[in-house]
Amino acid sequence: MHNDLIAALDIGGTKIAGALVDADGAILLRAQRPTPAREDAETVMRAVEAVLGELTASPLWPGASAVGIGSAGPVDASTGTVSPVNVPGWRGFPLVDRVRAAAAGLPAELVGDGVAMTAAEHWIGAARGYGDALCMVVSTGVGGGLVLGGRLHPGPTGNAGHIGHMTVELDGDRCPCGGRGCVERIASGPNIARRALDNGWRPGPDGDTSAAAVAASAAAGDPVAAASFERAAQALAAAIAGVAALVEIRIAVIGGGVAGAGDVLFIPLRKALHDYAALSFTQNLVVAPARTGTDAGLLGAAAAVRSAPGPRAPGR
Amino acid sequence: MHNDLIAALDIGGTKIAGALVDADGAILLRAQRPTPAREDAETVMRAVEAVLGELTASPLWPGASAVGIGSAGPVDASTGTVSPVNVPGWRGFPLVDRVRAAAAGLPAELVGDGVAMTAAEHWIGAARGYGDALCMVVSTGVGGGLVLGGRLHPGPTGNAGHIGHMTVELDGDRCPCGGRGCVERIASGPNIARRALDNGWRPGPDGDTSAAAVAASAAAGDPVAAASFERAAQALAAAIAGVAALVEIRIAVIGGGVAGAGDVLFIPLRKALHDYAALSFTQNLVVAPARTGTDAGLLGAAAAVRSAPGPRAPGR
Repeated sequence: MHNDLIAALDIGGTKIAGALVDADGAILLRAQRPTPAREDAETVMRAVEAVLGELTASPLWPGASAVGIGSAGPVDASTGTVSPVNVPGWRGFPLVDRVRAAAAGLPAELVGDGVAMTAAEHWIGAARGYGDALCMVVSTGVGGGLVLGGRLHPGPTGNAGHIGHMTVELDGDRCPCGGRGCVERIASGPNIARRALDNGWRPGPDGDTSAAAVAASAAAGDPVAAASFERAAQALAAAIAGVAALVEIRIAVIGGGVAGAGDVLFIPLRKALHDYAALSFTQNLVVAPARTGTDAGLLGAAAAVRSAPGPRAPGR
Repeated sequence: MHNDLIAALDIGGTKIAGALVDADGAILLRAQRPTPAREDAETVMRAVEAVLGELTASPLWPGASAVGIGSAGPVDASTGTVSPVNVPGWRGFPLVDRVRAAAAGLPAELVGDGVAMTAAEHWIGAARGYGDALCMVVSTGVGGGLVLGGRLHPGPTGNAGHIGHMTVELDGDRCPCGGRGCVERIASGPNIARRALDNGWRPGPDGDTSAAAVAASAAAGDPVAAASFERAAQALAAAIAGVAALVEIRIAVIGGGVAGAGDVLFIPLRKALHDYAALSFTQNLVVAPARTGTDAGLLGAAAAVRSAPGPRAPGR
């Protein structure tokens, strides 16, 4: 009998995933629906309720003591609301109250998706055992989260760790966030692909112009493709070095599709870190690929509940 | 009878200041020596001992329960050692042990000077009452510190808050720290003056080419002088916005000589913040001048002891 389960929700612009997660990070039950991202608020919520309904209908459900919610941002953990950029129907949507209502009144904890991924990596991934860590997702966007002094640092509204919107080019391009010269504008997958194309890289016969295709070209020796990854690595390194100078971290964990490029990203990233992280306490930073993979959101939502202050989570 | 005093030391490249500070932040006794910054390690330490000697000789001394040390960085609070850039004789110098020996074995807490200033502003300055704050000193260098979740965040080695060495220009100038495009290279007083001179600004009859002289010209309507402050403000705003995105802060407090320029700095800084801090949780950041002035180092060293975890500090 499992009596130390957490119900986890991972809410993104493409899919809504749910799971029952045990105290060791094993996923005992899964449910999933596509996100009706262009529909009205109630239609999106019905998809969440359908996922939760599969969980609550399980004979395992009585073992669940809380719900952890990781959501695309921005979120506001202080009010329990979310306003995901890619789900326009939800603006200040009271997700925590609605999830509690659909989950028999269990307590619920909300964090942004970058914070959730960080909680997962700190719990059972590459940041395990580190008291001070930055974890990042480099994918369609660039997000992240922090562990400081041994604890997750979600910040007052659950949005801390937005490394993708730190400025590394003072006079750089406008970013869709409204800022300028953001890391994401240089290092995200679409921007890696855009820069390669702008500089003359051409896709193979399959016409694939994704960052993964650019990575494959770079691995095969294409200098334009490699240069685009090097520029991304430079932006990531400058931001990671800045984070280390600001809060002191010992490790930077990088996941997401772009990290799947492996050496094409990690070799120039480690090299660039030498160039930007030169203070005594920022040198010798460990850079490691993430380990929790596509389940990071679910595992992290569960981990965020377990690490939250307050009485709600057993087994901490 | 005062029985809740902290002995405070503020160790910089120019002077070594000491004080006995009460629980309300009143300075009851002061001592000071010039820093023999170019001398050997023991000569520098003798100046510290002379300052401490004046404190221990006071009839107030029995009321002191701990020593707070704020030092020019880098420091290493984890080993109790300091390696101030401007005091080459001290490299890995065991300052905490030596101070304890000179202070009758009282416990001692070490933090970097940016962290100390932050502790002072959070205790009795402009950041008082804020749970999440960035405090900065913009002067010959640019330093700072963080308050997160209501507590000072010194980081494992006491160096957290080094905002001056966050990169805001990916392809920018080399910084003496070894990095590139650092905030300090754009926003420090000497760099404000250098840029104004490079762009054709000329000092008055007194030949004063300090940042304060540039500020006076800017206030009098000189466009080149104003533009140099605007560029500094832009770099500071980008860095502050990045800090807000990364850890969530509600206020940025700015002290140091360059902040003395007042509107010449603060008006373009608030304007530039609109340009860089566009996320829902980074908008509406308060920007305020520091209040603790030249005593920030001493008050902050005392405050850092009072806010430190562990059994050493009474009156917390």
